[in-house]
Amino acid sequence: MTSELELIEWLQRRFPGGATVPLGLTDDAALVRGQPSDSPWLVTTDLLMEGTDFKLTELSARHVGYKALAVNLSDLAAMAARPVAVLVSLALPVDGGAALARELYEGMTPLLDRYRVAMAGGDTNSWPAPLVVCVTAIGLATGPAPLTRSGGMPGDALIVTGQFGGSILGKHYSFEPRVREALTLHHKYDVHAAIDVSDGLALDLHRLAQASECGAEIDVSAIPIAPAAIQLSRKETPARTPLEHALGDGEDFELCCAAPPDEADRIVADQPLSVPVTRIGRLTEEPGLWLVRSDGTRTPLEPSGYRHMLE
Amino acid sequence: MTSELELIEWLQRRFPGGATVPLGLTDDAALVRGQPSDSPWLVTTDLLMEGTDFKLTELSARHVGYKALAVNLSDLAAMAARPVAVLVSLALPVDGGAALARELYEGMTPLLDRYRVAMAGGDTNSWPAPLVVCVTAIGLATGPAPLTRSGGMPGDALIVTGQFGGSILGKHYSFEPRVREALTLHHKYDVHAAIDVSDGLALDLHRLAQASECGAEIDVSAIPIAPAAIQLSRKETPARTPLEHALGDGEDFELCCAAPPDEADRIVADQPLSVPVTRIGRLTEEPGLWLVRSDGTRTPLEPSGYRHMLE
Repeated sequence: MTSELELIEWLQRRFPGGATVPLGLTDDAALVRGQPSDSPWLVTTDLLMEGTDFKLTELSARHVGYKALAVNLSDLAAMAARPVAVLVSLALPVDGGAALARELYEGMTPLLDRYRVAMAGGDTNSWPAPLVVCVTAIGLATGPAPLTRSGGMPGDALIVTGQFGGSILGKHYSFEPRVREALTLHHKYDVHAAIDVSDGLALDLHRLAQASECGAEIDVSAIPIAPAAIQLSRKETPARTPLEHALGDGEDFELCCAAPPDEADRIVADQPLSVPVTRIGRLTEEPGLWLVRSDGTRTPLEPSGYRHMLE
Repeated sequence: MTSELELIEWLQRRFPGGATVPLGLTDDAALVRGQPSDSPWLVTTDLLMEGTDFKLTELSARHVGYKALAVNLSDLAAMAARPVAVLVSLALPVDGGAALARELYEGMTPLLDRYRVAMAGGDTNSWPAPLVVCVTAIGLATGPAPLTRSGGMPGDALIVTGQFGGSILGKHYSFEPRVREALTLHHKYDVHAAIDVSDGLALDLHRLAQASECGAEIDVSAIPIAPAAIQLSRKETPARTPLEHALGDGEDFELCCAAPPDEADRIVADQPLSVPVTRIGRLTEEPGLWLVRSDGTRTPLEPSGYRHMLE
């Protein structure tokens, strides 16, 4: 078994990037620069597979289309890019592929309309195997430079949009990518770093901290727990707590950002977004991930969450 | 059954494009414009599926990687784009996926090096089903405007690079995308229209003619027939002629261009490329596709070739 991370590390060594792609394989999207005088682009791609990422018996093709596009827009949001165009490649099962394709595309249209994103093309194929949906999204970098995972500093406050946990009950296919929220935070405030929480709050926060060469402390009582995390906890035996769901569940697709403490105060006081912004902890000089309880006790936290494994 | 063409026509009506994507779903790549003052980009994507587009029992993973990238660079070449970066998404079979991924990437490196293209990212996944390779390539438009399929005029001469037919004997996975050839033709000569021949000379030429609102005549004796087309013809029973292979076989990945007759004369006299350029016919006002024999007789030609069908 090899984790996807090990393969990505091999790729980073094998393809070190360069002037045209200064941020290649390290962030949610890659920065691509054409002419030095032109605005840089951010590009990202995600591939969803039937049976692994979704089941068409449980999720309609429209929801799959919506989700396949939304996860890519969420990656662009993590870097405060303005989405411009998408390409969609499909491997359709031989039975009913054309009707399926139309439903997938129809599921994307609300997002295309809302964010004025153009359908720039794609490749449609048929094969005797399950559905594969591959979306590539391209956006323009905004501000003097894009937001990255690596810009955090020790002492920065950690803030998040929205609530966490239990997305499997419905949010995982109906979430709103935080495109506008990211643009507002990047343009109106001094945000140092950002990531979109796709694989779980603890794991993605750990990634942001590591990329910023920091550790991170999370204040237990500050974590905004989604009602779905509580519902899910009640349904299970043995039950994980709502807090465990909030820290470990994947597919929240909220933003987690690092900002100087007074700037975080200002953001939390302003509440400038359509969803609540909550301060949940801080970046530390000491590496590692820590949970801080209200009595001040500090326990190490395993950065659990969804890890992509390869054989 | 629905052809891929019908789905594309539905997509063109459903997503008519607009200012940011003036050439969306009509050409080999899509033109994407960010800021009005910036250089426009051209983007394209292709998805290859094990068992349908290739068999790993017949083709090594390195060759599959090479081909998956080369077909995308060929699409960019058709529009005279300078390739800049690629994204690679993989759905890997659960057994041996990580080793397979490395071989696929290694197969891409000769092209990345030769054309100075950056590996900008991707998405690597594992699933209990056959390999899927999805490559997205992005390039910068060159010249005052990109080459398109639709720029041809009645009376334009038709010219092609290289030779046609029999690519199944080896060229289909080892071909050189005509990136440099396209840049030379676009910058040094007045070329009106271009397409890359991926689905067969007759079919792709027909597409160029249709996009240009023309018909096309092909001079039988002028078609450059590849030695592989002759070999393949000798192997078969019942045999198709080498000419039939040259007109109908897919995956030549040569360029077919329309240019004013005197400009085509100049190109053929100069032979400015690393492969021969041959004049094979002309665009006509009358729609349709015609074969012209050396005695002047003219017969309609079915635009045969590889058509992508969906159930």
